[in-house]
Amino acid sequence: MSPQNDLEALIYAFSKLPGLGPRSARRVVLHLLRQKEKHFAPLVQLLSRCQHSIVTCAICGNIDMTDPCGICTQTKRDTSIICVVEEVGDLWAMERARHYPGVYHVLGGVLSAVDDRGPEQLRIGALTKRVKEGGVREVIIALGATLEGTTTAHYIAQQLDGIALQITKLAHGIPMGGQLDYLDDGTLAAALNSRSTF
Amino acid sequence: MSPQNDLEALIYAFSKLPGLGPRSARRVVLHLLRQKEKHFAPLVQLLSRCQHSIVTCAICGNIDMTDPCGICTQTKRDTSIICVVEEVGDLWAMERARHYPGVYHVLGGVLSAVDDRGPEQLRIGALTKRVKEGGVREVIIALGATLEGTTTAHYIAQQLDGIALQITKLAHGIPMGGQLDYLDDGTLAAALNSRSTF
Repeated sequence: MSPQNDLEALIYAFSKLPGLGPRSARRVVLHLLRQKEKHFAPLVQLLSRCQHSIVTCAICGNIDMTDPCGICTQTKRDTSIICVVEEVGDLWAMERARHYPGVYHVLGGVLSAVDDRGPEQLRIGALTKRVKEGGVREVIIALGATLEGTTTAHYIAQQLDGIALQITKLAHGIPMGGQLDYLDDGTLAAALNSRSTF
Repeated sequence: MSPQNDLEALIYAFSKLPGLGPRSARRVVLHLLRQKEKHFAPLVQLLSRCQHSIVTCAICGNIDMTDPCGICTQTKRDTSIICVVEEVGDLWAMERARHYPGVYHVLGGVLSAVDDRGPEQLRIGALTKRVKEGGVREVIIALGATLEGTTTAHYIAQQLDGIALQITKLAHGIPMGGQLDYLDDGTLAAALNSRSTF
């Protein structure tokens, strides 16, 4: 059923956001409309402003208020290490861990035969160009441990072949606080293979 | 931590919507920003338009594109029956059941000592005024079966006392498809009390 008026269109638009459905979209819209001045108007204002103020970093593909982004312009960042991630959300997750000193490169997806996504749709060319410009000693490929993630990682490694730098990937293993009993066999085998001395 | 820029403010605003939290708000914002032209711009436009086009019905309190709303202006509706509900969401739920022929009255909440919400904050005065204007033969009090809902129902019944009309409430019982084993004692007792001949 296509929306018949703005109200239905608004609920429909919200229901298409990730994590929301028709029921939660109705709740959100009612919440916004119940106190129009307090909730609705400020959100509309904020969104209108964000439409122009939030930009994509031309260097790494991060989403931020400036281009180049806050990470690329930070002087204390080690620009000789580039961490390749699938999406901006992964970059933010890495940043929340507050452990990584280098810079990033957002691919904007992974290679996928199902979704018909080839190398030219991803920012892989920009990565090789960036690496070839020099000054990079390590590329950490931090893609998901899925079939597509692994394929993409191999493709990138291939593209960077012949350039004098280290290509690494994230370790597999037991998550912090994880219990052996609940782990899948693949992870357990990987954790066993990568065991370290106590 | 208060938001430091528009991006953080946007994520914060979304995280405060019902059913969303920081993590899902980040996902929603990233989804919107990933394809700005396709997702973000239309939503902003739609929201800006809705800010003015969506209004509250002065008669029943429903939210719609017109005032009076689509239900109050429908000629085939039986205006002699008024169904009193807590929120617009409840009205919509009743409408989805496609079974109720009358009109509505949205209270905008229930009496609550905890939230310091008294009768004057609800649209109870508007209800008695509406009933006193005549032509109403039944008021169905369709409030939640909570302490506050029941208190509010009693208060409304008191206010309408002395006016020649029928005051009814929704039946308690086993939900369709519900199993006895999973029902609470109160519902089961109510279902037993209201049993009908087979």
